[in-house]
Amino acid sequence: MRKHLIWSVYILITLLFLLFLWFFGLRNANDWQENSPTGLGGDIGEKYVMVTFQSGIDYWRPVMKGFEDGGQALGVSVEFRGAAKYDANEQITILENIIARKPAGIALTAIDPKALNNTIAKADQAGIPIILFDSGATGSKAYSFVGTDNYKAGAEAARKMGNWMKGKGKVAVITQPGQLNQQQRTEGFVDTLHFEFPNIQVVEVADGQGDIDASAQVASDLLARYPGLGGFFATQANGGIGIANVLKSQRLDGHVTVISFDTDKGTLDMVKDGTIQATIAQGTWNMGYWTMVELFHLHHRLIQPGYGGANPAHSLPPFIDTGITFVTKENVENYYAK
Amino acid sequence: MRKHLIWSVYILITLLFLLFLWFFGLRNANDWQENSPTGLGGDIGEKYVMVTFQSGIDYWRPVMKGFEDGGQALGVSVEFRGAAKYDANEQITILENIIARKPAGIALTAIDPKALNNTIAKADQAGIPIILFDSGATGSKAYSFVGTDNYKAGAEAARKMGNWMKGKGKVAVITQPGQLNQQQRTEGFVDTLHFEFPNIQVVEVADGQGDIDASAQVASDLLARYPGLGGFFATQANGGIGIANVLKSQRLDGHVTVISFDTDKGTLDMVKDGTIQATIAQGTWNMGYWTMVELFHLHHRLIQPGYGGANPAHSLPPFIDTGITFVTKENVENYYAK
Repeated sequence: MRKHLIWSVYILITLLFLLFLWFFGLRNANDWQENSPTGLGGDIGEKYVMVTFQSGIDYWRPVMKGFEDGGQALGVSVEFRGAAKYDANEQITILENIIARKPAGIALTAIDPKALNNTIAKADQAGIPIILFDSGATGSKAYSFVGTDNYKAGAEAARKMGNWMKGKGKVAVITQPGQLNQQQRTEGFVDTLHFEFPNIQVVEVADGQGDIDASAQVASDLLARYPGLGGFFATQANGGIGIANVLKSQRLDGHVTVISFDTDKGTLDMVKDGTIQATIAQGTWNMGYWTMVELFHLHHRLIQPGYGGANPAHSLPPFIDTGITFVTKENVENYYAK
Repeated sequence: MRKHLIWSVYILITLLFLLFLWFFGLRNANDWQENSPTGLGGDIGEKYVMVTFQSGIDYWRPVMKGFEDGGQALGVSVEFRGAAKYDANEQITILENIIARKPAGIALTAIDPKALNNTIAKADQAGIPIILFDSGATGSKAYSFVGTDNYKAGAEAARKMGNWMKGKGKVAVITQPGQLNQQQRTEGFVDTLHFEFPNIQVVEVADGQGDIDASAQVASDLLARYPGLGGFFATQANGGIGIANVLKSQRLDGHVTVISFDTDKGTLDMVKDGTIQATIAQGTWNMGYWTMVELFHLHHRLIQPGYGGANPAHSLPPFIDTGITFVTKENVENYYAK
């Protein structure tokens, strides 16, 4: 009986040991699979930083969400920094501090197309990948630009306007002439009307100073000087709201076609009540997401930053067009912040 | 003694059982981590198909490599199919067969900007993601286009030409007027010279029929009719070789500036010997790689195909510009097939 018990114990221990080895073996096999290349994934200690300006505005929220979603999909960490004000020097200081911390990559939207170029060159020298989103920096050392094709957005606005006005009439543009993206929107709009709708006349390209009241004043003057003015294109949200305010006060809302830009609550409300016929939503989530994906590829050396190197085929795409959508009465509900 | 032994056995079994639970627990934790989103990875059973035309030409090799590299990075399978000839019906038949097999996604380069639209719509109806690369299809149901910005490529060629010719002289373009990408290259070239180099005159935009001998004949005529012609832009590789052959036979090589397109061996040899000053290399690897990345995102529903849906922020970028590089004597060695 005692011998029998000892044998049972030995068999039991041996079985348990085998079971233990089997599980241990499985666990090792698992580890091996995790290390083999079966997906694009990074390390949670890898930190990617997004740098904005006017960091408090709602506009950046979906951009940041896209960056965060990209980071989560790739298993890496993200961090957000921004100049509180519309101040190039503040943004330069923040960017220099971040470069000193040597992150895995930097996503930057440039407050000014030239002012940040020296700082961007420092990141390049330090071997830190840097990608521009939303607002580019002409001639900088940044590797790629992820954002709206602003000329094309203006051209699409012109086609919408041309069709709504049945190909004839007078229109005006209210813009901020100093800003590159708004210049490009204006050019796309004016060129496309000129070539595709020759019977629509652009009577004026006016400066609304990016301000609601200044734009309202300009819109009011234009309506007085060009009787029968049939449409406005605002290259920026405050311009559109200014125009809409004037049309409402003159009971012209619904009689003059307005196409505006971006999807802040003020603009969406005017689309909903029919004063603004359409506003252009930018692919803001895409800006954050694809900037993250590109930075990840650079940090992991899956792709080369520039062109014409020893392996020219593996360069980064210089531009990702994040797309636009027209927001009208039909789909406006989808664009309110949830 | 016997009681003592039984106690020992119980304690041993309990300890082993706890050890077993501990390992089992670790293994589960591992499983959980594997299922949680720590990387972009798919299943090897997931098959993505690339469909070309003139499938034998060297041009597709880096495109296919990019597609394959993308598939490997994401842990999915890829397959290549193509119409052997330059035949739209053959490509339609192949595409319909592939749709019937319900792959995870289709990468398509359209032989004709319109002919494939009905078939592309069938893929869309069957819920199969489809992305266009290299040659687009205007107004199709495909979700995105990954390729060269041909207008911009022509504009860059004009800037290179303008600087090399020191801003004055006469140039000619040899193109195939029927093809959209070549039309865009021509427009970008002509517009940019017009606006940025007003003292360079484009004497003619001629049809080289995509053929070496026809292009040589056209180039020879142009040289006879416009004495002192200082430069040629060929929007297609055979045009460039035809021009170069004529310049060599007339001992004008090196005296007339030639900018051509693409990097087949014939063109690279002419760059190397100085008859063609530069040829434009397209980002062909990028076309394959980023098409794969986009298809993966659509199949895994990480992103929406179209615009203006219920979650408009998560749409696919409509265009990825795969970039160009100028190939000159200095970097030509990097572009020969390895």
